[in-house]
Amino acid sequence: MINLKEDERLDYLLAEENLRIIQSPSVFSFSLDAVLLAKFVYVPIQKGEIIDLCSGNGVIPLFLSTRTRGKITGIEIQERLYDMAIRSVEYNQLHNQINMIHGDIKDAPNKLGFGKYDTVTCNPPYFKTPSNEEINENEHLAIARHEILCTLEDAIKASSQLVKQGGKVAFVHRPGRLLDIVTLMRQYRLEPKRIQFVYPKLGREANTLLIEAIKDGSPDLKILPPLIVYNDDNEYTPELKAILYGQGE
Amino acid sequence: MINLKEDERLDYLLAEENLRIIQSPSVFSFSLDAVLLAKFVYVPIQKGEIIDLCSGNGVIPLFLSTRTRGKITGIEIQERLYDMAIRSVEYNQLHNQINMIHGDIKDAPNKLGFGKYDTVTCNPPYFKTPSNEEINENEHLAIARHEILCTLEDAIKASSQLVKQGGKVAFVHRPGRLLDIVTLMRQYRLEPKRIQFVYPKLGREANTLLIEAIKDGSPDLKILPPLIVYNDDNEYTPELKAILYGQGE
Repeated sequence: MINLKEDERLDYLLAEENLRIIQSPSVFSFSLDAVLLAKFVYVPIQKGEIIDLCSGNGVIPLFLSTRTRGKITGIEIQERLYDMAIRSVEYNQLHNQINMIHGDIKDAPNKLGFGKYDTVTCNPPYFKTPSNEEINENEHLAIARHEILCTLEDAIKASSQLVKQGGKVAFVHRPGRLLDIVTLMRQYRLEPKRIQFVYPKLGREANTLLIEAIKDGSPDLKILPPLIVYNDDNEYTPELKAILYGQGE
Repeated sequence: MINLKEDERLDYLLAEENLRIIQSPSVFSFSLDAVLLAKFVYVPIQKGEIIDLCSGNGVIPLFLSTRTRGKITGIEIQERLYDMAIRSVEYNQLHNQINMIHGDIKDAPNKLGFGKYDTVTCNPPYFKTPSNEEINENEHLAIARHEILCTLEDAIKASSQLVKQGGKVAFVHRPGRLLDIVTLMRQYRLEPKRIQFVYPKLGREANTLLIEAIKDGSPDLKILPPLIVYNDDNEYTPELKAILYGQGE
């Protein structure tokens, strides 16, 4: 049994038939970007410590639990979203693997430890300057989408403090912030090693950026194969289907 | 009539049926990268001043002459390549539009003027540290390919000095140098605005990077649609054919 509040739904986590996640259209629903980040990042498979910043309803920790036996921590500053996340973790009986924390990522290194994590993931708020309209309309969505409580620099700084030397930090963001991201990463000793651009279709500009850096890594950047989301008939490409539903390419 | 030296050939400039270019397998032949850069960069159409740095046998000025009525200057430090370039310009009767200069790009701003050009293009040497073997083997190719006489910073600094405020600077390079390029560009007040990655095939890592910046531009980066060179049957994609031969897509 599960206690669903207001307009919450218990959704399937895509191809993960054993996993369900609590979502709410008015509070938080996970995006394709979160799925792509959870599949993109390198994670230690058998053991290790992984931390997800700006965790929302816990979508990335839940996805990562299918890829690793390591311990996963998720941090979310909004109590309402944190509450959804812990109920999803409980429902999936993953409380031994996933530990959700209600708090500010800026306090995380002091509370959890510096240089402790093998992998840090983050799907941060994308937008710089929210209009008052957007803030007033829906506080939960505004905080999740705009840099109100967490700037890009906050997220990159905290990631760098939390990750081990040689550990990995992976972000998903908009391509328009590429230069800010790589500049801030290098400023905080995170060397970008793999970037993948996601294009909605062939012939269209990229609308999403996946980037993984290594703490104190040597410069050697690769631009991974383009990820094309839809084919000309507006269906998911085989590659996207494989990511979303685990179907063969 | 044209005077061809040693193993030089008079090649067609791809789809440009009226244009020919002197090439030599042992000295310099133009690459796909030069073609892509000449098609990628924004140029003023009716008038204006364009300058191409590290011009080699003048391939980019020759291509650009089909896209603009503006004046085009090309700078090449190797006398042997400069000599090929001026003979190609003469052969094509483009001496009223294209002015080739034998010299060092580092001296160009003092000789030609600061802030004078609407557009700067550059297909610089790609490789950082040549082995002695490579230098000795073929000096012409070594200088064209390695940062022996011209580093990336030299090229970006000279570009920034030559271009007008609001003018455009376009480079082609390897994706592994992306972070160096954007860092140096911002250091020299060139704001990257358009980046296009060239992938040899779908499913493969990018092997070429096209980037255009604006002097003192505002930050607003776009990642253009992916440029895929070959299809699964190892034929040029329709898009590449359109670029190379002007055929419809």
